[in-house]
Amino acid sequence: MSQALYIGVDLGGTAIKTGLCSADGELIRIHEGPTQTELGTEAILNNIAAYVKELVPPGTPEWDRVQGVGIGIAGFLDIPNGIIEFSANLPFRNVPVKQLMEEKLGKPIKINNDANVAALGEAWGGAGKGVADCVCYTLGTGVGGGIIVNDRLIEGFSGMAGELGHMSVVPDLEAIQCGCGQMGCLETVSSATGIIRMAKDAVERGDRTSLSLVENIMAKEVFDAAKAGDEVASRIVSRAAFYLGKSMAAVAVIVNPRRFIIGGGVSKAGEFLFEQIREVFVKLTPERAHAGVDIVAAQLGNNAGVVGAAGLFLRA
Amino acid sequence: MSQALYIGVDLGGTAIKTGLCSADGELIRIHEGPTQTELGTEAILNNIAAYVKELVPPGTPEWDRVQGVGIGIAGFLDIPNGIIEFSANLPFRNVPVKQLMEEKLGKPIKINNDANVAALGEAWGGAGKGVADCVCYTLGTGVGGGIIVNDRLIEGFSGMAGELGHMSVVPDLEAIQCGCGQMGCLETVSSATGIIRMAKDAVERGDRTSLSLVENIMAKEVFDAAKAGDEVASRIVSRAAFYLGKSMAAVAVIVNPRRFIIGGGVSKAGEFLFEQIREVFVKLTPERAHAGVDIVAAQLGNNAGVVGAAGLFLRA
Repeated sequence: MSQALYIGVDLGGTAIKTGLCSADGELIRIHEGPTQTELGTEAILNNIAAYVKELVPPGTPEWDRVQGVGIGIAGFLDIPNGIIEFSANLPFRNVPVKQLMEEKLGKPIKINNDANVAALGEAWGGAGKGVADCVCYTLGTGVGGGIIVNDRLIEGFSGMAGELGHMSVVPDLEAIQCGCGQMGCLETVSSATGIIRMAKDAVERGDRTSLSLVENIMAKEVFDAAKAGDEVASRIVSRAAFYLGKSMAAVAVIVNPRRFIIGGGVSKAGEFLFEQIREVFVKLTPERAHAGVDIVAAQLGNNAGVVGAAGLFLRA
Repeated sequence: MSQALYIGVDLGGTAIKTGLCSADGELIRIHEGPTQTELGTEAILNNIAAYVKELVPPGTPEWDRVQGVGIGIAGFLDIPNGIIEFSANLPFRNVPVKQLMEEKLGKPIKINNDANVAALGEAWGGAGKGVADCVCYTLGTGVGGGIIVNDRLIEGFSGMAGELGHMSVVPDLEAIQCGCGQMGCLETVSSATGIIRMAKDAVERGDRTSLSLVENIMAKEVFDAAKAGDEVASRIVSRAAFYLGKSMAAVAVIVNPRRFIIGGGVSKAGEFLFEQIREVFVKLTPERAHAGVDIVAAQLGNNAGVVGAAGLFLRA
């Protein structure tokens, strides 16, 4: 099976990306096309099938080597049965995607949620390559995650394994409500959204900060101000880093990974952010669970999803 | 292999317990003898071999069915190589126990740490029977733990998976130092030792509590006083329960188990304690990660160790 190939699909609200991968997680080529959400469920599934066939034309020797097609989707999924129960940005409601796509493509289909799939992609073919136990954080609009133990993605009892953004880490007195309804989730302070909110709060209450001159504050502006020595911005970054490090300390005594991988837009802040996270992590973690553990940047960027979706056949 | 049998050994500082188990985790019979720590490493290993042979005499058909002997040990271990690096209550220093015991018994040997092994025993043959994803807490002098995912015990990169007692959960302002050197570990508030300490502190500072009349405060006295309505004792129990529930909320979004199993002396407080833990857990955990999840008492008591050690051959 050294000649085996795997196809991954990243099904998003605006674009469908497909990628062809080797059995050791190398991305051979990608293809991208519009989702056309407005045309409805059936049209979207036909688009996936069409783009997969454009990526690897049926009838070719390459097509025969394809062992399966994995699909990553943002939403609530019944993973074992391959059903999309609900998706916020796609019109699927209880659609048996696995069954329907197997009929259209004649290849085994697996589905999984987008954060898990991106984590698996990094672990398998990106920053975690060769490391059996890794945990990935994706810092974007929210905070996503994925847990890889002994080279395998963990799902958990109800598919909630790796939902790191909803770890309750902020103490009650300073906690705010998360989009999920719960108080004090990691996502409220360490996502781009959380960082922007803290910055806007500071400006609104009149804190002296260079951010008050910025028209449309994004996470990047907060990091740039912090790097330039702005104290208000520095405290916001420290707070985001503190709760990330604290959550990693919990992860370290639960699954004890060898490597933490940080991706998503916020991770572009790079070592400036990572150093602060490491300092907290080391302080809050027993020596035997932090010695030899590294915290590194993701490598695959927006391709992590297609690589991980392809990897579902070997690593899930 | 339905006729396969497994032997588990619980190697303690004063006693060595051995147990014979079926392939589905049923404990068939046990044997117990003194460790004789004072006689040194070689004598201890000979005692293990002698007790195993008393449990199942070599030459019998039963002996031929034994697939392996697992040993649970408190200490720092090199698990893959079967070496005891250090143990606080046994004279072993870098002893290749796996190799030496394989020579003595002619059966495959596996070793693992006592907390992991007890967790595996409960998951395999006790309160977790039939549940693929469980997390066990042992509340005794310290707080131990073990994580079972997809029916398998997780070790982690450096054997620190499931070290739940050293999750940093208490906020800085009220944190005290743990025996491990770190501040605010779960063990400082939710172990028997932690509960007794909080009670003694309350008595010493003159809080009005029925505990001030107790000569030698143990965890049981604190629970009894709380059940009788003593407000100081109630707050201590609430605090122990709060941090247990909070740590479980973290576990729930990391590995998302179906069941939490609580054992150890403190767990004898029963539903009075468990109800408070459940309330915190539900409050701090997203609905999809707490719905259908139960928190139950361990069932095997002191036999969890031998059952889990036997289970190392099927579930680790």
